[in-house]
Amino acid sequence: MSLDAVLARIDETLPQATDRLIDLLRIPSISTDPAFKADCDRAADWLVAELESLGFEASKRPTPGHPMVVAHAAGEGPHVLFYGHYDVQPVDPLNLWHRDPFDPAIEETPKGQVIRGRGASDDKGQLMTFIEACRAWKDVHGALPGRITLFLEGEEESGSPSLVPFMKENAAELTADIALICDTGLFESKSPAIVTMLRGLMGEELTIRGADKDLHSGMYGGVAMNPIRVLARIIAGLHDDTGRITLPGFYDGVTELSDEIRAQWQNLAFDHARFLGDVGLSEPAGEQDRTPLEMIWSRPTCEVNGIWGGYTGDGFKTVLPSEAHAKISFRLVGQQDPNAIREAFRAYVEAQLPTDCEVEFHGHGNSAAGQMQIDHPAFEQARQALSEEWGLAAAYVGCGGSIPIAGYFKTVLGMDAMLIGFGKDDDQIHSPNEKYDVESFHKGIRSWARVLEKVMG
Amino acid sequence: MSLDAVLARIDETLPQATDRLIDLLRIPSISTDPAFKADCDRAADWLVAELESLGFEASKRPTPGHPMVVAHAAGEGPHVLFYGHYDVQPVDPLNLWHRDPFDPAIEETPKGQVIRGRGASDDKGQLMTFIEACRAWKDVHGALPGRITLFLEGEEESGSPSLVPFMKENAAELTADIALICDTGLFESKSPAIVTMLRGLMGEELTIRGADKDLHSGMYGGVAMNPIRVLARIIAGLHDDTGRITLPGFYDGVTELSDEIRAQWQNLAFDHARFLGDVGLSEPAGEQDRTPLEMIWSRPTCEVNGIWGGYTGDGFKTVLPSEAHAKISFRLVGQQDPNAIREAFRAYVEAQLPTDCEVEFHGHGNSAAGQMQIDHPAFEQARQALSEEWGLAAAYVGCGGSIPIAGYFKTVLGMDAMLIGFGKDDDQIHSPNEKYDVESFHKGIRSWARVLEKVMG
Repeated sequence: MSLDAVLARIDETLPQATDRLIDLLRIPSISTDPAFKADCDRAADWLVAELESLGFEASKRPTPGHPMVVAHAAGEGPHVLFYGHYDVQPVDPLNLWHRDPFDPAIEETPKGQVIRGRGASDDKGQLMTFIEACRAWKDVHGALPGRITLFLEGEEESGSPSLVPFMKENAAELTADIALICDTGLFESKSPAIVTMLRGLMGEELTIRGADKDLHSGMYGGVAMNPIRVLARIIAGLHDDTGRITLPGFYDGVTELSDEIRAQWQNLAFDHARFLGDVGLSEPAGEQDRTPLEMIWSRPTCEVNGIWGGYTGDGFKTVLPSEAHAKISFRLVGQQDPNAIREAFRAYVEAQLPTDCEVEFHGHGNSAAGQMQIDHPAFEQARQALSEEWGLAAAYVGCGGSIPIAGYFKTVLGMDAMLIGFGKDDDQIHSPNEKYDVESFHKGIRSWARVLEKVMG
Repeated sequence: MSLDAVLARIDETLPQATDRLIDLLRIPSISTDPAFKADCDRAADWLVAELESLGFEASKRPTPGHPMVVAHAAGEGPHVLFYGHYDVQPVDPLNLWHRDPFDPAIEETPKGQVIRGRGASDDKGQLMTFIEACRAWKDVHGALPGRITLFLEGEEESGSPSLVPFMKENAAELTADIALICDTGLFESKSPAIVTMLRGLMGEELTIRGADKDLHSGMYGGVAMNPIRVLARIIAGLHDDTGRITLPGFYDGVTELSDEIRAQWQNLAFDHARFLGDVGLSEPAGEQDRTPLEMIWSRPTCEVNGIWGGYTGDGFKTVLPSEAHAKISFRLVGQQDPNAIREAFRAYVEAQLPTDCEVEFHGHGNSAAGQMQIDHPAFEQARQALSEEWGLAAAYVGCGGSIPIAGYFKTVLGMDAMLIGFGKDDDQIHSPNEKYDVESFHKGIRSWARVLEKVMG
């Protein structure tokens, strides 16, 4: 009954909630650009004031970069920590926006009402869904839903340099029973989902060196080994003909899906043809015995993200280059060990080097996959809550990318995280004309009210 | 007897000959830069006047670019055509020169006297060796050595755009029994040599396309084929484990060396270790059963001259690129057909393309190898003349690079060419501080006197 009252309150006060979000969106809290440092600070202050007005004990906490906002509500029962970020992406190219990115407004579109402005979806709109759910709860019950900590970052779009040190220094304060992260989307823009599997990422930049200077291919061609050829052979050997990665031990720690998760994914009826067709492709190219969804969410990969060497300008130059370079990254799943794979990769490359060639490596990134322990009761509670709000069975899904914060909650604070979000594929995050559907905002607030009702019991 | 008199005359008049070369070097005839157009014209005029003073019927002949200089001397016996070029390379970076490149002078160096200035070796010093030989001959005999045509180009350093059209329009006038080209060097800076084998060149730029836009490797990695991986596999497959090129039919038309040529090359005692050591290498990397000299002069190659795709800046970007590119070139020998090899290459690439990938090709260059018919008596006569002047057995050698003019004489005018030159490896052609050893100039003039004496009979 009381949940119904909270949901009704959310429906009635949506215009005011939207106005508050628009207020926050007006603050150009671009974290990568020092020119907006004061604006980041102002966004943090805005949030502190908002949370204090709701009865949270909130504070702006300094870091070497932009401040964190931490807020606590006391209470009985489970302790949940909510994470979001108040910083936004830069806005260039500005000429591609059809309105000032920091003069947000509700716009009517053929697909319905949207809130247009930088940060509307990523992540101010999303983090405000949770705060507005708390507000409606308090309006109806006279108190916040229970023992909640909010942890709002201002450096997510600039690499989160202060995040891990801050978490380590404040571990006792930030550790809860479970974390909620609102920075993801609906599955195919319509189905509610909880991300429980995130791929890890390990990158290597390598330089293959042959002769100690660039050579003329008329003079040395055929006699001096060409580093591009060596690099090509290294890259070509990383996959076998079936698309599997050949590094010894690479698949150690890769787990197969449970029948339950496999069934949930099948139930999502993912449109593989559209997914590929959207980018001009017709057939999945990876491991032959996996569906695209399995490949993206549950299988490791090896990709060449960049390659360069020799003459790359107009026309031809018959150079036999001294060096060739590549950036290669691995998406990791399950219990794969990034360090072991880095070592296996380097050993493989070194074994491929002919006489007179040498290699130099630079490691980039080293994050293991995130695999949540979904036996914590909050997972099933949240899944039911989301299914009820959206009228579609919510699923535990994977995420092909890497969301480092989820890994940090696990490795630094020992907490599992539920990644629940309401973004849509066409939200244009990181691009001009970012928007958040009013539907995402409204049903997002309602979703959190339902989740809190079940989880906080 | 009369040859001795000519050689003595050359020795006596060397200072005057050097002064004339220095005069010519003062003219900044840089052909690539339109600012020096009048200077190119002036260099042509200078040569016409010089040749007329020797009794040649000389003229400056217009082209759409810089003029040609053509000069004729009548006479009995074989008709030889001499080719050189009066244009020079640009001089930047000027700050690396230790004197004004167009204020040439004789300098003393630890290795002996040199003529320093742009064009001293490439090619004004070399072409003047022939003109000065004619002058000494005339001084002694009262007449030029016989039926000689000089053909001096002003666009060699800018791609020779007018050369083939001019040769075609003036084929009857320019066709002789044999061509002499003075634009090469001594073997290892000491042994006289006649280049009789020049490698051809065929280049292809290819673009492999996968998805119709760059993708995020978290989103599509493992599902969408990575064009860099396709390109790497294509490049890796072009050579087998023994260094041979795998394209079907590639070795059609590749001839083996005659025992005589092989013996001459062995006699050159080429220092393979130094050749490789100079560029930081220790072992030849090509076909296992060939010496480096054989590989460079007589074997075809396939080199990747450039490769690029994806993100190549600092740090990492987990892009799965839409395109990957490479510039690949083939050095050709013997009777290899550039068109057939281009077709075989394209067919090979197309057969390697997975579903959803396509390729675009751009051809660059298409020159067959030059293989001179050394049974023309002038070859053996010149080889003897050079051996006598230098006190070392002259050899018929190859050239790893491509000297298009030799091919044009063959294909357009049906003439074989002897490439004889006196440059040294440290002449710094195309670089700051270009020089020509006074020894090269002096013995070069004497060499031509001896060659003319034998060939013109």
